[in-house]
Amino acid sequence: MSHSPSLHVGAVLFEGFELLDFYGPLEMFGLLKEEAKITVVAENAGPVKSSGGPSGMADLAWANAAGFDVLLIPGGIGTRREMNRAPFLAALKRLAEGSRIVATVCTGSLLLGKTGLLDGHKATTNKRAFQFVKAAVPSVGWVAQARWIEDNKYFTSSGISAGMDMALAVIARQYGREKAVEIANRAEYEWHEDSSWDPFAAALSS
Amino acid sequence: MSHSPSLHVGAVLFEGFELLDFYGPLEMFGLLKEEAKITVVAENAGPVKSSGGPSGMADLAWANAAGFDVLLIPGGIGTRREMNRAPFLAALKRLAEGSRIVATVCTGSLLLGKTGLLDGHKATTNKRAFQFVKAAVPSVGWVAQARWIEDNKYFTSSGISAGMDMALAVIARQYGREKAVEIANRAEYEWHEDSSWDPFAAALSS
Repeated sequence: MSHSPSLHVGAVLFEGFELLDFYGPLEMFGLLKEEAKITVVAENAGPVKSSGGPSGMADLAWANAAGFDVLLIPGGIGTRREMNRAPFLAALKRLAEGSRIVATVCTGSLLLGKTGLLDGHKATTNKRAFQFVKAAVPSVGWVAQARWIEDNKYFTSSGISAGMDMALAVIARQYGREKAVEIANRAEYEWHEDSSWDPFAAALSS
Repeated sequence: MSHSPSLHVGAVLFEGFELLDFYGPLEMFGLLKEEAKITVVAENAGPVKSSGGPSGMADLAWANAAGFDVLLIPGGIGTRREMNRAPFLAALKRLAEGSRIVATVCTGSLLLGKTGLLDGHKATTNKRAFQFVKAAVPSVGWVAQARWIEDNKYFTSSGISAGMDMALAVIARQYGREKAVEIANRAEYEWHEDSSWDPFAAALSS
């Protein structure tokens, strides 16, 4: 009997993405082994430079994808350019509409917010960029203190490392809590399982 | 006045590397911004496939590098092949000898151990692979319970996510503790600053 992956993760790259926003969650999904498949998409297949320097590789041009079980959208300094680029936002909106779950890390929620799809939803974002993001997309119910927020098909997380905690929550929704704990242990990662845990919200008032 | 980075990080890629072993520490070094520079090296420049699926990009063939301020060596299932490949071990040994600090994540310490450079040193590794690594390189003083170990120029860390805690310790040695805390906060990352914190060592006896 052939076995096909139960979770196809599509992960969006753009120049100036934040490394850990992207590869932290993909580590957790990758540890699902044959239960998951990861496809990295970008405007074009090929290398895409991160904000920190190293380049990631896109497997597929996003024009060739319709949607995924999980669409992962990272943040990073490149969001400041993409947030104003209509072709990027149109592609992102189409992929997000075609996906069962959409999960953003850090200022990835700024990009998703700019598509209009988060209007009227609750969401969170990077704490140091919070006021900027809130002003840029005022139609979203931004939550200041949260490691991540789940609102129907949308998972949005706080800055950079919060994406790993959120990815484990996505895995818990799909496969149950026990599987998420197993993956965290395999990564020797201390999962912050309480989505309201957020000591970094203190940076908001500084 | 021109400003040159004070920390040149060289990061080694091989097929079957673990994503977070590699990009977790590189996130922390990348947040040093202009104070650091990251060069990804592999046998050849170009894409290199991870154990989880996505490929990373190598900037430079390692034949063209002499050494770095920090040499980062990840683990992953690919270590089981490279640990027996003499040309890989020779290149790794040359780069490690030419580097001021050598930092391994997960079973990256298996590879470094196989070069002989860890002989007589204390080190740690992935907890689920601990007995395998210990048997493969018995000349190293393997420490079962440790998030990471510092022994002179060698930093070795436990499985996968432990590399981020170790990278912050490398930053603390180079720039002081305050800088490491600042980087961790910027990544919204809860640094496990106590190198003896290791709940995952319990997996050893299971």
